[in-house]
Amino acid sequence: MADPIMFYFDFSSPYAYFGALKIDGIAEGFDRDVDWRPILLGVTMKATGNVSLAHQPVKSDYAKHDWERLARFMDVPWTLPDHFPIATQAAARAFYWIKDTDQALAKKFALACFHRYFGEGRDITTRDAVADIGETLDIDREELLAAVSTNQIKQRLRDETQAATDAGVCGAPFFIIDGEPIWGSDRLWMIRRWLKSGGW
Amino acid sequence: MADPIMFYFDFSSPYAYFGALKIDGIAEGFDRDVDWRPILLGVTMKATGNVSLAHQPVKSDYAKHDWERLARFMDVPWTLPDHFPIATQAAARAFYWIKDTDQALAKKFALACFHRYFGEGRDITTRDAVADIGETLDIDREELLAAVSTNQIKQRLRDETQAATDAGVCGAPFFIIDGEPIWGSDRLWMIRRWLKSGGW
Repeated sequence: MADPIMFYFDFSSPYAYFGALKIDGIAEGFDRDVDWRPILLGVTMKATGNVSLAHQPVKSDYAKHDWERLARFMDVPWTLPDHFPIATQAAARAFYWIKDTDQALAKKFALACFHRYFGEGRDITTRDAVADIGETLDIDREELLAAVSTNQIKQRLRDETQAATDAGVCGAPFFIIDGEPIWGSDRLWMIRRWLKSGGW
Repeated sequence: MADPIMFYFDFSSPYAYFGALKIDGIAEGFDRDVDWRPILLGVTMKATGNVSLAHQPVKSDYAKHDWERLARFMDVPWTLPDHFPIATQAAARAFYWIKDTDQALAKKFALACFHRYFGEGRDITTRDAVADIGETLDIDREELLAAVSTNQIKQRLRDETQAATDAGVCGAPFFIIDGEPIWGSDRLWMIRRWLKSGGW
């Protein structure tokens, strides 16, 4: 099997939520795996000189309208959370801890985080909220809470974020397929095109 | 005929170049006109808190790669100009002067500006360069040079840029169709969808 498609995202990115709901379905049709890598987008944006939507009221209003209509087109649940954007360290750390033993379960966990945050509009900032999500997937609550507090997993998330920045990730969702960078949930057609033709 | 699709752009935007090559073809199929409105995107971005690609090296590298591949997919000429981005006052002022008597000619002029800048990579900053482009369309050189220097046309461009900012334009190409804002050359599918269904 060819190398997996790299999928970089932040749990606080609505466009990443839309991308996460589709990317594995696209890849499966071409016998490709997808390697999910949550990162701290704020850190990446700071490193690349970008500014948050929170500091761009006009663009932010446009984006809110855009998320709402995209969700309608995709027929997926959508609620703009009261707390947005949020710090996603707890969810991202838990993801990597789960992924190290079970990648498929980690993806289920990530989708459950996205669903709770953007589907139901419920906060996922705290470790307790993340442990709640884990429990719905039969992930041991105490083990998860202990795991996301270790220095090792904190460093892991820093390293993953740095590696993504070094790889040129400057937004989310960001995909790298066979070295080709593709940014945005608007660009899934480009991934399909690459997979079909093996390049361009 | 229903109201025209508003098309806001800056002559220095590669994505606007791609959008400009397609928007009228899409609209024609649905018996819609397109109202082209060049603006000074830098002014709009400053007003909305956005930052230029020039200050975002990683995003800028991604964008350069993206423009090159999009041009290949669309099979249109593409050369990243040595001077980029540029001030586009001269081209935008000339556009409005032409448009006030002949909208179809103004669009031809705009496409010729885009072609010279992004198709051939030649500078279009100066009034002389803009007059050269006008001459290829039998537009009187001296009349154009005089027109783009009046206070009236300078104010016109300021007013158009302000009106676009007030309308929520926060990037280019930016379209407004029956009040619905649609941003980006990636979103032409959304315009088609709107035109087909008369809303969503």
